[in-house]
Amino acid sequence: MKKNSKKTDPMDCSIARALNEIGDRWIFLILREAYFGVRQFEQFQRNLGIATNILSGRLRTLVEAEIFEKHRYQTAPDRYEYRLTEKGLDLFPVIVTLIRWGDQWFGGEDGPPLLLHHEPCGKQLSGSLTCEHCGLEIRAQDVRYENGSGAKTTR
Amino acid sequence: MKKNSKKTDPMDCSIARALNEIGDRWIFLILREAYFGVRQFEQFQRNLGIATNILSGRLRTLVEAEIFEKHRYQTAPDRYEYRLTEKGLDLFPVIVTLIRWGDQWFGGEDGPPLLLHHEPCGKQLSGSLTCEHCGLEIRAQDVRYENGSGAKTTR
Repeated sequence: MKKNSKKTDPMDCSIARALNEIGDRWIFLILREAYFGVRQFEQFQRNLGIATNILSGRLRTLVEAEIFEKHRYQTAPDRYEYRLTEKGLDLFPVIVTLIRWGDQWFGGEDGPPLLLHHEPCGKQLSGSLTCEHCGLEIRAQDVRYENGSGAKTTR
Repeated sequence: MKKNSKKTDPMDCSIARALNEIGDRWIFLILREAYFGVRQFEQFQRNLGIATNILSGRLRTLVEAEIFEKHRYQTAPDRYEYRLTEKGLDLFPVIVTLIRWGDQWFGGEDGPPLLLHHEPCGKQLSGSLTCEHCGLEIRAQDVRYENGSGAKTTR
């Protein structure tokens, strides 16, 4: 990749880099199950109704990406489970904001299918993204972009 | 879908419903461009280096999902642009949290390639997701789940 190129490189962006690892519908659903506490192959398989070869492949991807770590929790016979790493736990806000969007636009009259409670304060989470400085909800229209120190292309 | 079924239905979840519309790597990259202000087919094509048939298909999906609206901005010859709808603008927090995750885990020593500024207060956004009640950063480990009124299956 040429430096100082004026052409926008679609990879020169944290979203693109992130999507290289998680840009797949099944990956998000497997992650959702993991946040609910699922760790074992058979549980993922049963809860998602996913074909075993597809599940194997996606779990391998998640382990290679260091989002899951494969942990042997029993010997004779060996049994493994998939645990979220710190990097995997850090993806949680993406899932929360996705839930919120789904609730807002597909929730219908029944209300949200799932409620999230924040244990440290006991209150229900809306999943809205707010500015950590002024507290206002962050809207696309209110954000200005600027090249950071890691930018390889200009906008 | 049977009501009161105990089996977990992978579709009974706002994430699954959301991913039916946006569960694709190209969709996220097209959305990223749209938040940067891109509206025209040729601009999306040039910025992403995406094949025209793939771009056409994804734009059609986004219009059908009412995330974009196709707007004629010129006649003789007719020219169209793709504008984010309210539903599309509402997806912005998902992109912001993805950017943050990418910055944290792929940023490297150069720092983030892109900085986001919140126009109403002028400060730089970290993109972290905080509890709107207590202000703490939301971590996966601190969230408890409960069936909401729209739940069709139990957890």
